[in-house]
Amino acid sequence: MPEVKNILADIPAQLPEELFSRLVQNEQVHIERIVSRGHRSAKDQWYDQDHDEWVLLIQGAAILAFSESVLDKKLQAGDYCLIPAHCKHRVAWTDPGMDSIWLAVHYNKQN
Amino acid sequence: MPEVKNILADIPAQLPEELFSRLVQNEQVHIERIVSRGHRSAKDQWYDQDHDEWVLLIQGAAILAFSESVLDKKLQAGDYCLIPAHCKHRVAWTDPGMDSIWLAVHYNKQN
Repeated sequence: MPEVKNILADIPAQLPEELFSRLVQNEQVHIERIVSRGHRSAKDQWYDQDHDEWVLLIQGAAILAFSESVLDKKLQAGDYCLIPAHCKHRVAWTDPGMDSIWLAVHYNKQN
Repeated sequence: MPEVKNILADIPAQLPEELFSRLVQNEQVHIERIVSRGHRSAKDQWYDQDHDEWVLLIQGAAILAFSESVLDKKLQAGDYCLIPAHCKHRVAWTDPGMDSIWLAVHYNKQN
């Protein structure tokens, strides 16, 4: 019988760095949980990925920035978006007062 | 700039059937939201899928049953599991008093 785990659990008391946890990994898809506690991307550090990423903020609050836009996107719990390959983005802010829990689904879109 | 939507939103007041909403669909992956309001699989109706499914209960409460086990799995918000291809399963119960919101990621695992 499949094992059930909880995506809100197993978060360390101390979180000096963002926490990345691999949930599924194979040739088609990579599903990971990311926990941020006030963490943000370094200034001028842009993610430029060669694959699409679908991301859902399960808990918390965050701001995503995109290099092609002067406007940032504030995210609250339940917000999701699809970040296409080579859409440069960074995490401009996460709420320092709580754990922001992301679910990210990475996949290589072919054709 | 990527469009942001909320996975907890856009749920109709009346929900005679479970609501399936496609979020991402391509050759690699199919991501969908499912909203259940007391819905369950018909008796003796088992899902027998030819692909793996990773499922997360974002909100609500549910019970999954598996044909290979006499024990059912009670799920609460944040619980997730991987249902391998051909692992026969059904939704035995969802909370009739609230919306249970599932995120399902379907993918074809290739060796």
